[in-house]
Amino acid sequence: MGPDPAVAAVRLAVRRALAGLPPGAMTLVACSGGADSLALAAALAFEAPRSGRPAGGVTVDHGLQDGSAEHAERVVRTMASLGLDPAGSVAVVVGTEGGPENAARVARYDALDRTARRLRAGAVFLGHTRDDQAETVLLGLARGSGARSLAGMPPSFVRRSGAAPEGDHELCEVRYERPLLDLDRATTRRACEALGLEPWDDPHNEDPAYARVRVRREALPALEGSLGPGVAEALARTARLLRDDADALDALAAEAGARARATGEEGEDGLSIKVLEGLPRAVRTRVLKAAAIEAGGPAGTLAAVHVDDVDRLVTGWRGQRHVDLPGGIRAYRRCGRLLFGRE
Amino acid sequence: MGPDPAVAAVRLAVRRALAGLPPGAMTLVACSGGADSLALAAALAFEAPRSGRPAGGVTVDHGLQDGSAEHAERVVRTMASLGLDPAGSVAVVVGTEGGPENAARVARYDALDRTARRLRAGAVFLGHTRDDQAETVLLGLARGSGARSLAGMPPSFVRRSGAAPEGDHELCEVRYERPLLDLDRATTRRACEALGLEPWDDPHNEDPAYARVRVRREALPALEGSLGPGVAEALARTARLLRDDADALDALAAEAGARARATGEEGEDGLSIKVLEGLPRAVRTRVLKAAAIEAGGPAGTLAAVHVDDVDRLVTGWRGQRHVDLPGGIRAYRRCGRLLFGRE
Repeated sequence: MGPDPAVAAVRLAVRRALAGLPPGAMTLVACSGGADSLALAAALAFEAPRSGRPAGGVTVDHGLQDGSAEHAERVVRTMASLGLDPAGSVAVVVGTEGGPENAARVARYDALDRTARRLRAGAVFLGHTRDDQAETVLLGLARGSGARSLAGMPPSFVRRSGAAPEGDHELCEVRYERPLLDLDRATTRRACEALGLEPWDDPHNEDPAYARVRVRREALPALEGSLGPGVAEALARTARLLRDDADALDALAAEAGARARATGEEGEDGLSIKVLEGLPRAVRTRVLKAAAIEAGGPAGTLAAVHVDDVDRLVTGWRGQRHVDLPGGIRAYRRCGRLLFGRE
Repeated sequence: MGPDPAVAAVRLAVRRALAGLPPGAMTLVACSGGADSLALAAALAFEAPRSGRPAGGVTVDHGLQDGSAEHAERVVRTMASLGLDPAGSVAVVVGTEGGPENAARVARYDALDRTARRLRAGAVFLGHTRDDQAETVLLGLARGSGARSLAGMPPSFVRRSGAAPEGDHELCEVRYERPLLDLDRATTRRACEALGLEPWDDPHNEDPAYARVRVRREALPALEGSLGPGVAEALARTARLLRDDADALDALAAEAGARARATGEEGEDGLSIKVLEGLPRAVRTRVLKAAAIEAGGPAGTLAAVHVDDVDRLVTGWRGQRHVDLPGGIRAYRRCGRLLFGRE
């Protein structure tokens, strides 16, 4: 008799992610004790040795709740009992910048980066599921800032932040994997049950002060009610397709931006209007936004409406003198070039 | 004293759309009698003559409710009283294909095409607002089929369907304008009120049997509740950005597809694997989807998962024999080419 289907599904997802990693290096799972990362921890403990890799586990103690240290110790014991070695916890101090969710995320990834570098781990596995992805896409919808904000979480990414030990440059990079993005939360819960693992339900996951919790408890069920079942799956699929789109258009914009800068007399500043005019709008607006940010415009407040104003200097010029942008940046047109400067 | 701000906003939107039209030709407004198209009809009756264009109005009687003919007559009288000339109604027979909403839409646009051709109208004005756009984007989310399905309704489009009168080819094309996509429904309602026009509330707009009605009444309010106000605006902004993206990527895919076909010995079928491999995934998957549809695959059921399977023949080939697609189409690889054929 094979394993429970939910356990098998989680293991298969982990096996596929392992197949994409360089051989031999240690793997690390980030485990909160919730059903998603607990099921992931069990699957990694099972699969990693079978692919010739050691597997360890780490839990981050955010120190935000009474008894968080005791909870972390319980998670460490569970990870150790699954065979993860080393299994440990890292306590962090959560700041306030960018709101509580953001501050906790920043502290968590810093701790994971440090742990991965210390253990020379080849990859850190994260337990985000298709349901998390759907929530992320809906949170991105509220920003209304295009494909990238709807592209959700990538299945694999590299963080380059953090100082490297002397002469050990490659250790600056920490690779993260999200093997469960195609599975739903119900599967991880069933996997835990089948394995006799008792997941911890983080009270933060039920606190309606968080936008993500409201999306999970109100918006997604209302969308399912209106549009029929399968909305979370459709959102996750959308995220993947839009990430491909955003990657392709960002690459085209980088190339077109270089061309627009280069085409000009020696020493000429700014971007060639002629090159810009010849670009599709999706590429041109990306070039303009990148140029405004490079000139010092704040990425967070530079909105589509500002980029549209700059675009009209290119495609709808009727002698406008300049366009003022957030951060005291000004765009203007001179001798066939589009320039950005300080007010 | 100028006009009411809501009236002024609708008129400004119409004036901008008129400015993009060729001079002189008649304009036509499609009016159901609801607040959106009624405010639009009033604005077009006011603005079109000031831009040197005659303006007429048409209402479509779908024959789906008791008294629909009498209602149509009331709308015609209102349009005439606004100064629209001609003002008339067209009765249509709504079929059943593709569900009731789709069948009504097909019959409606056919009737508008015919009326526009008969009157030699330069453009037909439609009253869709930002709220309609937000609903359309959410309905597209449920399909999960990428940028195009989230791109909502274009602000301007041309329909080429329908037979032209003998030797009068240019009349095959009917241009449509949606000048109100940046205004919300509340503005059109206020404009009607300020003008003393009494809008008609279509009972279909309150019938929860329609997905669009459920989205309007349940999903959008739940999203606003979870994400904060401004969701409809964010969705409309997203639609516009993703339409630009989809246009750019579709154009690139058309160009890359031609290149992949051309690169090969004289008379070689299919697409060059080498050309396909060099494309960004967002472009390549569009080329593959278009090729599968051209080979006879049904556009409606050809999903991202099928395209992914075909893509693996290009980027993850380990000797797979072929990929079976909906509609009895089969993709396979031979001598450096990707081919599509019947099973």
